[in-house]
Amino acid sequence: MAFITNAWYVACWAAQVKPGEMFHRTLLDQQVVFYRKQNGEAVALQDRCPHRFIPLHLGNLRGDRIECGYHGLQFDCSGKCVKNPHGDGKIPAAAKVRSYPVHEKHGMLWIWMGEGVGDPAQIPDYSVLEPESGYRTSTGGYIHINANYELMAENLLDLSHITYLHDGLLGSPEQVGADQEVKEEGSHIICNRWMPNVSVPGIFDMLYKRDGRHVDMWTNMRWIPPSSFILDSGVHAPGGQREDKGWYFGVHILTPETERTTHYHFAAALPSGTAMTTEEAARYAELRRFAFEEQDKPMLDAQQAALGEANFWDMKPVLLTVDAGPVRMRRALERMLAAERQGTATTG
Amino acid sequence: MAFITNAWYVACWAAQVKPGEMFHRTLLDQQVVFYRKQNGEAVALQDRCPHRFIPLHLGNLRGDRIECGYHGLQFDCSGKCVKNPHGDGKIPAAAKVRSYPVHEKHGMLWIWMGEGVGDPAQIPDYSVLEPESGYRTSTGGYIHINANYELMAENLLDLSHITYLHDGLLGSPEQVGADQEVKEEGSHIICNRWMPNVSVPGIFDMLYKRDGRHVDMWTNMRWIPPSSFILDSGVHAPGGQREDKGWYFGVHILTPETERTTHYHFAAALPSGTAMTTEEAARYAELRRFAFEEQDKPMLDAQQAALGEANFWDMKPVLLTVDAGPVRMRRALERMLAAERQGTATTG
Amino acid sequence: MAFITNAWYVACWAAQVKPGEMFHRTLLDQQVVFYRKQNGEAVALQDRCPHRFIPLHLGNLRGDRIECGYHGLQFDCSGKCVKNPHGDGKIPAAAKVRSYPVHEKHGMLWIWMGEGVGDPAQIPDYSVLEPESGYRTSTGGYIHINANYELMAENLLDLSHITYLHDGLLGSPEQVGADQEVKEEGSHIICNRWMPNVSVPGIFDMLYKRDGRHVDMWTNMRWIPPSSFILDSGVHAPGGQREDKGWYFGVHILTPETERTTHYHFAAALPSGTAMTTEEAARYAELRRFAFEEQDKPMLDAQQAALGEANFWDMKPVLLTVDAGPVRMRRALERMLAAERQGTATTG
Repeated sequence: MAFITNAWYVACWAAQVKPGEMFHRTLLDQQVVFYRKQNGEAVALQDRCPHRFIPLHLGNLRGDRIECGYHGLQFDCSGKCVKNPHGDGKIPAAAKVRSYPVHEKHGMLWIWMGEGVGDPAQIPDYSVLEPESGYRTSTGGYIHINANYELMAENLLDLSHITYLHDGLLGSPEQVGADQEVKEEGSHIICNRWMPNVSVPGIFDMLYKRDGRHVDMWTNMRWIPPSSFILDSGVHAPGGQREDKGWYFGVHILTPETERTTHYHFAAALPSGTAMTTEEAARYAELRRFAFEEQDKPMLDAQQAALGEANFWDMKPVLLTVDAGPVRMRRALERMLAAERQGTATTG
Repeated sequence: MAFITNAWYVACWAAQVKPGEMFHRTLLDQQVVFYRKQNGEAVALQDRCPHRFIPLHLGNLRGDRIECGYHGLQFDCSGKCVKNPHGDGKIPAAAKVRSYPVHEKHGMLWIWMGEGVGDPAQIPDYSVLEPESGYRTSTGGYIHINANYELMAENLLDLSHITYLHDGLLGSPEQVGADQEVKEEGSHIICNRWMPNVSVPGIFDMLYKRDGRHVDMWTNMRWIPPSSFILDSGVHAPGGQREDKGWYFGVHILTPETERTTHYHFAAALPSGTAMTTEEAARYAELRRFAFEEQDKPMLDAQQAALGEANFWDMKPVLLTVDAGPVRMRRALERMLAAERQGTATTG
Repeated sequence: MAFITNAWYVACWAAQVKPGEMFHRTLLDQQVVFYRKQNGEAVALQDRCPHRFIPLHLGNLRGDRIECGYHGLQFDCSGKCVKNPHGDGKIPAAAKVRSYPVHEKHGMLWIWMGEGVGDPAQIPDYSVLEPESGYRTSTGGYIHINANYELMAENLLDLSHITYLHDGLLGSPEQVGADQEVKEEGSHIICNRWMPNVSVPGIFDMLYKRDGRHVDMWTNMRWIPPSSFILDSGVHAPGGQREDKGWYFGVHILTPETERTTHYHFAAALPSGTAMTTEEAARYAELRRFAFEEQDKPMLDAQQAALGEANFWDMKPVLLTVDAGPVRMRRALERMLAAERQGTATTG
């Protein structure tokens, strides 16, 4: 498998790249080191000195430059070697590392690992995480998944699993009869679930506080290719209109680490009207972490282990109606990858 | 290497599959989940949901059914999907998992992983473990071996190693001069060792209580293809007849887990006349565990590590007279495997 | 990659092979077991019984023989099986293991793993470690490196890295301007670094005790193929002659364990005039260990991890002037390997 590279991916939460420190991570099978220039701007460089292949994060920051810890070559933010301290100091033309365009948006550091420099306008809109949105936010979530990002993307796009995997926390048996709708908006795929006259599962009830009263509930998930998601969920008194957007937003973003591991970043925008005490907020965050890390992650890890190195389709998966969204997503990703190989397209 | 599949293998001790719980294990490179129906009958299913390849043991038992923990598909004891809780609830024809015939006998759960349903009459006879045999028994032994089952089978069939590997516990220098005899009875191979006028090694003396007096001793091992063994061992006053069967029986049964790992189940039938205090019985069990787990297992694990992925015969092993039994066994296994590939035979 | 085999390698420190005990190690991808005959002479045998491939070090010493722990075959110092305790006791002609010539010199056990018996006169001269040299010595150093020996050899031959990797301990920024000279003497390659009017870094100052006064300093490293090194380093008052050998000798010897792991043995000969208290000597040894094990080793391990299974030259390393020595060394090793493959040369 190759990765779609002409796309913006979340490298990490912006706060993880601290002034005066290096941060390093494997993204799309490439080692990358991050640091901040003295003016605060983030930099992303290939994390491998071209001289003797030492990870640059084992070296030191020297102002806006990074210095290899083995022989002291210095590289500037463009990845160009600008100092060879030895002998006559000449710098070979090949002495450079790849520099990746990065862009901070919505508290995340986005990276472009494809051709050209990428257009930051193509970064998905998560403005619900911004202060001016009026939402209270819970950000900084991160889990390392030992599974290919497409398997995790299926988990997110098809929320029918919450009845079984997250029973009592995020879902319940009442939700299994949800009216499901799959739509496309441009390159986006949207999977809406509408559940009239149900009770509210535990974690959601910490936000919605219906104390057991029945509601109409919706969980509408939008896939923004290649691997960003936003969930619009909420409730209202039974019998209301089907659409009542803008209550709660779940932010879920996947970045391939390797073919079989994934960085999973998540956050949420809670209605500002939702009052929670500090204790309730901590309890909410802990339950959410439990659901993602101790329910989703073991399932995903086991799924990848069962697949091993096999191709997903070669395993001849049985398809259900709930797979309509995931299958469209897989086909879209295949088309994007094919287009990228032919050099005919970038991801919007 | 492939495995001989048309044979009954021990999956586990029957007591390991408890009511209301799932038990899972890899057998012959296949993941299998076990549970009991409400009437107590054991069930063995392929441990992988055909929808998204999740191990079924991560799900839940629902009466006689198993429910996948990810999306709630339910499978009955035959492996057929009998409930799809989503959408119109239609069940795709391909939604099934393999069901393996199992049979409880002599306290063990036997599994048939080959063609057809298997004939339980072909399960080896270990009735010495049954109460009506009149023997006291010590059952439930299990060790995981990091070696191919044929290497462990050679260990069992050729007991000449007990002088060296188990000196003082199961063997002694006196036993190296044993009169060895290799016989065949139908598909069985029998390796008899007759040791006249020897003292009794430690573990055996806990059973035989000769307090240092010399005896005639025999250790007669029978191989029942593909990987079951029964040892008939005992002693009598020197000068008696060579054959005096029925004193002590050692039960040793191997099940391939993968090409390079093996499940080793063992038990023993002790003469009912052999009185042991509770302390003595515990000491006996501990010494036996020590001999198998801290003497045999490290040797086997190291042997497999030395072989790596090489074929045994390609390594050109030097052959000794004591290898007569093991070599016949290897050749018999090769013939069985070849026959199975040609579809012309099952294991008796 | 293959290894150069027609060469003497350090198997271990001689004291590691203790009377009555076995010592085993992988060298050049081969498992070797060492022991001492009753007259004290060291023996090296292939660590694998030809019968069932059991590592012989799991067995027992019987006088000058080694006995396999599984079935009791005995091998003499030449590797010939001299006892088969079973049946008629006949010994198959193929029952033998490889015996490797070994030679003790300078406190180390050297092994010849190539063709013929090797000429001990070709073992590199480290007589500075002998008592009659007049040097105090610090021997017995050992670190396991998770990198190919050539990567570690580059580290040793090109000491320009000490300014960066060992700043304050073995090097300093002042040393980066060293006058570097690369010479060849027969098959040896010598990389000399001359640093006039510099201060003395921490570890060296424990020996040289200049208390911050400036000195002229030299670090002259000699490579003796395929993987032995000796460093001649020292200081004198500024303005003296460039050459003033014989102050301090660092002994660094590499033995490939596998293609990607290396045994690194090291020692030092300190000027007898260098008085150190016991505490100072312990502190010196600890700082040296820290520099090698916690500075060099992580860098080397990370370098190998970055290379993975790639060929060094295929990675197109950028070359600097400080690489003149390492590149010549790599080319010499390539010629030696090619010559060995054609059967036309041994290592001198």
